[in-house]
Amino acid sequence: MAGVTGRPLRVGIAGLGNVGVGVLQVLGRNGGLIAARAGRPIEIVAVSARDRGRDRGVDLSELRWVEDARSLAGDPEIDVVVELIGGADGVAYELVDAALRADQSVVTANKALLAHHGVALGRLADANAVSLGFEAAVAGGIPIIKTLREGLAANRVSRISGILNGTCNYVLSTMRESGRDFADVLAEAQALGYAEADPSLDVDGYDAAHKLAILASVAFGIPVDFASVYVEGIRHVSHLDVEYAQELGYRIKLLGTALLTERGIEQRVHPTLVPVTAPIAQVEGVFNAVVVEGDFVGQVMLQGRGAGAGPTASAVVADLIDIAAGRRLPAFVPSDSSGLTTVPIAEHSGASYVRLMVSDQPGVIADITAELRTEKVSVEAMIQRRPSPGSPVPLVFTTHPSQEAALNRALERIGALGTMLEPPTMFRIEG
Amino acid sequence: MAGVTGRPLRVGIAGLGNVGVGVLQVLGRNGGLIAARAGRPIEIVAVSARDRGRDRGVDLSELRWVEDARSLAGDPEIDVVVELIGGADGVAYELVDAALRADQSVVTANKALLAHHGVALGRLADANAVSLGFEAAVAGGIPIIKTLREGLAANRVSRISGILNGTCNYVLSTMRESGRDFADVLAEAQALGYAEADPSLDVDGYDAAHKLAILASVAFGIPVDFASVYVEGIRHVSHLDVEYAQELGYRIKLLGTALLTERGIEQRVHPTLVPVTAPIAQVEGVFNAVVVEGDFVGQVMLQGRGAGAGPTASAVVADLIDIAAGRRLPAFVPSDSSGLTTVPIAEHSGASYVRLMVSDQPGVIADITAELRTEKVSVEAMIQRRPSPGSPVPLVFTTHPSQEAALNRALERIGALGTMLEPPTMFRIEG
Repeated sequence: MAGVTGRPLRVGIAGLGNVGVGVLQVLGRNGGLIAARAGRPIEIVAVSARDRGRDRGVDLSELRWVEDARSLAGDPEIDVVVELIGGADGVAYELVDAALRADQSVVTANKALLAHHGVALGRLADANAVSLGFEAAVAGGIPIIKTLREGLAANRVSRISGILNGTCNYVLSTMRESGRDFADVLAEAQALGYAEADPSLDVDGYDAAHKLAILASVAFGIPVDFASVYVEGIRHVSHLDVEYAQELGYRIKLLGTALLTERGIEQRVHPTLVPVTAPIAQVEGVFNAVVVEGDFVGQVMLQGRGAGAGPTASAVVADLIDIAAGRRLPAFVPSDSSGLTTVPIAEHSGASYVRLMVSDQPGVIADITAELRTEKVSVEAMIQRRPSPGSPVPLVFTTHPSQEAALNRALERIGALGTMLEPPTMFRIEG
Repeated sequence: MAGVTGRPLRVGIAGLGNVGVGVLQVLGRNGGLIAARAGRPIEIVAVSARDRGRDRGVDLSELRWVEDARSLAGDPEIDVVVELIGGADGVAYELVDAALRADQSVVTANKALLAHHGVALGRLADANAVSLGFEAAVAGGIPIIKTLREGLAANRVSRISGILNGTCNYVLSTMRESGRDFADVLAEAQALGYAEADPSLDVDGYDAAHKLAILASVAFGIPVDFASVYVEGIRHVSHLDVEYAQELGYRIKLLGTALLTERGIEQRVHPTLVPVTAPIAQVEGVFNAVVVEGDFVGQVMLQGRGAGAGPTASAVVADLIDIAAGRRLPAFVPSDSSGLTTVPIAEHSGASYVRLMVSDQPGVIADITAELRTEKVSVEAMIQRRPSPGSPVPLVFTTHPSQEAALNRALERIGALGTMLEPPTMFRIEG
C-alpha cells in the first residue's frame, strides 16, 4: 500500500475477553487501511489470557502465547502493551507499571486502574517519554479523550458532563418508557445481558465515577482524584420520580459532571434531572454521551456506544495508530489550573427536586415550607396530587438554586416531622 | 509554565473578519494554557486585511501589518499562514498555494477553496511535508475532521451524514415550529443576521456541498470532488411538506450524505426526511451535527455550533496546536478505497416522500398508482385529506426503497396528467 513504510508496530495483548478479541478482529479486517493511516503496519505478536483452550472464534495459532501477562513487560520484541485485564490493582497494575518502566508504551481500557493509579502511571509514562493511551477507558467508542486533549485544546473547559454508564441509562430509559420500577427493570437487564450478575459497579455509580475522574483530569489539567468524586447510584430512583420529573419537564439521567466553580472543581456522579429539551436528555438506552462546554466553542456533544467489543476495540486501535504514527501526547495534559481544589458536595449550589411521602393532614405544607424558609431555600414548583384517603401522598417540589448543605439541614428536620412516612428523596437538577 | 520550551510557532493571519479576530482573542485569553498544551507558545506575528483603519475591538498595534496578504507566503518570519479570506479562487488560492510551495504550513477555514482545489493543495502540502489544516472548514467548532482522521481511524466508514449548514437548519426548524413558509422565515433570518443578504450559498445547498465534498474525501480516502456532489437546496420545501413529514413520523433536514454502496460512493446534499426518533432529528436551530457510521464503532454523532467567531476560531487554533506540537498528518488520509467511483444520483436507491397537488376528480389515485406500478415503485403510506370543494388537494405518499431513475420516470408521467395542478415534489428519506 502506498505510503506504508517503516517496520511494524509490535503489540502484545494482555486479556482476551470480548475487547481483546475485538482488537484482533479490527486489525484482521482493516489492517491494510490502518497501516495506510498509521504510516506502518500494526501487528499483534503476542497474547496472554487465563484460558488458552477457550474457543474465542479467532485464530491465535500464529501468535506467541504468554502464560504470565506480566512477562509482556520488558519483552524486547514488543513495542506496545495493550492491557485489557481489568481491575484497579493486581496483574493489570503490575503489568502496566512494569511495561512503562521498561520504556514500552501502554494502551488500556481499564478505567479503575487509571482512576486509582492514573497520576503515578502518567508520570512514569511522561518521564520515560512513552505513550499511555486510554481512549477506550471512557465512553467506549466515543473519542472524547482525543477531543478534549486535541480537538478542543484551544478552549478553557468550564464543564464536562456525561452519560458514562450504558447499564444505568438503559435501566432509567426503560423505567421511563415502561413505568416499571428499578428492581424489575434491573432483573430484566440482567436477563438480557445488559447488566452484570453483580450490578453494583454500574448501578451504584462507581464505573461512571472512575470515568468521570479521568475526564475531569483531562478537561481541567488536574491530577486524577477518584477519592474526590461524590458518587450516588440509581437504586433509589422510583418510578414515581421518573413520572414527576417528566411532569416537570425533565428526564432523570445518571450524569457524571465535572464543573469549574469559583471555589474550585466539583466532581460528582448522581441521578440528575435534565430538561427534556436538552440534547443529552434524548440519549436513551445503552448509548453514552458527553457534553463539553468550552469558552470559545460553546457546547459540543458526542454520543455513541459506550461499551461493547467493537466500539471499545475501535478506541484501543485508535490509540495504537497514534503511537504507530509517532503522535505522542503527555499522558495527562498540562494546564495552568493545577492549583484548583475540589469542592465538597455539601458546598454545591444548585436547583433540586425533592419528593416527600406525607400523610394527608392539615398543616403539612406549612410545616415543610417553614423549614425551607428557615434555610433560605426557595420553592420553584410544587405538585401535590389529589390524595386517596388513608394512603401516602407524594409531595414533590423543585427549588431555586440553593446551597446543598442548607437544603440538607431543612430536609433533615422535614424528615423528622410526624407526617413524613418515608425519608425525603432529593435529586439535583442541571442545565 | 512547566513543560513549555522551544521557540514560539510564528503565525501570520490573512483576513480579519469575525473568525480572524476570534483567533486573536483565543490566543490572547488562553495563550498560557495553549502553550502548555502545545509544548510551546503560539504567536501571531503578522496580519493582513483589507481595511487597516476599521475598529475590530482588538489591539493590533503590536502586530506587523501586511498590505498584500500574498506576501505572507515565503516570509521567513512566518511558520504558518492562517487563511481566512474566503472564496475558492483569487487571493485566497494564490496565498495558500504560494505558502505551501514556500514550505509553510497552512490552516484555513475556507471550504470553497478546498472543495475546488483540495486535491492539488493537499498534494503540495504532502510533497513539501508541511501541514494543511482545515478543521475549521467543516462544521465550525465540531472536531469532525480530527475524529474521522484519528479518533475513528480504526474503522472503515460506510456512511457520513450531517447537518452542515446552520442557516438552513434554522430556517427548517423555524418553519416546523411556526408553521410558516420558507420565504417568510428566510426574510426573518436575514433580519436577525442568521442568513446573508444573498442567501444562495446557504439555502441552495452549495455551502453544505463544499463541506460534504471535504468530509467524503476524509471519510473514504477519495480525492475531494465537488463536481460529483448532487446539490439540492431548501427553497422548494413547503410548510405542507414539513407538516406531512411530521404526520408520517419524520423531520425535514438539509442533510449532506456520503455513502458507500456496492456501486461506489454517493455524495449528495438535499432536503431529507429523517425519523423523528433519530438523534440527528433532534438537532435544531443553528446547530450542526455529523453522524459517522464505522464498521466497529457503530454510529457516533457529534453536535455543536457550526459557525460563528468563537467555534470557528477554536477549530483554527486546534490545528495550530497540532502544528506547534509537531503532529502532522497527510493533508488527506490515504486509504485503500481510492478505486471507488462516484454513483450518479439517478442510480441512488432509497425510500422517498412525494407530494402531488391534484384536482379532486374520480380516478386520480388509480392513474397515479398505475404509473408507479409500471415503474415497480411500491407505495408504503399514503395520506389524502378530505378535499375542500374546488381547491387543490394534497396527495402525499412515501415509497419503499426504489431506484431514483424509475421514480423520476413515473413522476414525469404523473406530472403530465391533466389532474395535476403543480409539478410533483419529491424528497428522499434516510435512516
